[in-house]
Amino acid sequence: MSVEPGRLLRAATDPAWYAMAVRSTDVLLLDHANCEKKAASTALALMFAYPEDFELAARMSRLAREELRHFELVQQRLEEQGVEFRRLSPSRYAEGLRKAVARQEPERRRDLLLCGALIEARSHERFMGLVGRLEAPLADFYASLAASEARHAGLYVRLAARRGEAVDERLESLAAVEAELATAPDPEFRFHSGTPA
Amino acid sequence: MSVEPGRLLRAATDPAWYAMAVRSTDVLLLDHANCEKKAASTALALMFAYPEDFELAARMSRLAREELRHFELVQQRLEEQGVEFRRLSPSRYAEGLRKAVARQEPERRRDLLLCGALIEARSHERFMGLVGRLEAPLADFYASLAASEARHAGLYVRLAARRGEAVDERLESLAAVEAELATAPDPEFRFHSGTPA
Repeated sequence: MSVEPGRLLRAATDPAWYAMAVRSTDVLLLDHANCEKKAASTALALMFAYPEDFELAARMSRLAREELRHFELVQQRLEEQGVEFRRLSPSRYAEGLRKAVARQEPERRRDLLLCGALIEARSHERFMGLVGRLEAPLADFYASLAASEARHAGLYVRLAARRGEAVDERLESLAAVEAELATAPDPEFRFHSGTPA
Repeated sequence: MSVEPGRLLRAATDPAWYAMAVRSTDVLLLDHANCEKKAASTALALMFAYPEDFELAARMSRLAREELRHFELVQQRLEEQGVEFRRLSPSRYAEGLRKAVARQEPERRRDLLLCGALIEARSHERFMGLVGRLEAPLADFYASLAASEARHAGLYVRLAARRGEAVDERLESLAAVEAELATAPDPEFRFHSGTPA
């Protein structure tokens, strides 16, 4: 199955989010570093939760290595741009998605993988949107990272559906939750925040 | 500071542990896979706990990537040898060390790094001991992994002492705890278990 990441999303990011991002590159980069760390940590959590699934573990291990490599690159950017470190509260996004995840198996694993796909698809959409709005070298930086987000989105969907499971209906309902979180008015600006309130 | 990992350890692994390891290569490999995952996860936990420390984060991110790569190699070995997966309870080792870690900062960070050094040093010692006792290809496999364990041990000590902190006394006392855990009679065989009871 080939997955075009934009087709997973049920709502486009509002132009107001991009306008805020261009004005807030320090917060954008600081939160982006957090997101790469969290993406690696989520992949590891799947490895710990389903250790008997060797294919999942091998895929998640490689994905986590790639996210960590991206983390290192974002941190280098922070240093090069002289951004002063500060701790940022997480956005409502990941927690909001987590609430929609089924508690019982095997639905839980399916949902965790589909949420992974949606998060990567949203990241890909915003990376691509930032490329046309930011100046170099930051625009080039986001362009260089975008392809792997698209690849990761496809990987997550394939893993969720790999044993012939029907995932379309569930993907549709999780995508609706994701779209609401990514576009409803949000008082806080973060990488995955909603439309600036 | 150059650190010879064997010099960190206060007691050598008992030959009985190696004898058991040679008879129990399935458990050895299964628990080894767990250990590589846990090593990556511990490095990530340090990145989340001290995000303002860019040097620590960059070093831990690279270390985690290396541990994940090792995890992938161990899992490939499990597949090649047709080892049937089973969940293993963790050994007393990591939890025993964790109990000795200071609760307050900055002592906590120092202790976490020194424990990291001791775990890597013990892994290095056992990898090297296994090389001479296992048959190829498993002996070659452990030989190929040993150098990075030594490097990681040195890295952890350097990070603990990098701002001129005096760590020798604390390292001595944590090394005594580690030596007891790694050599006292232990009813359970694991990668970091004590002398088989």
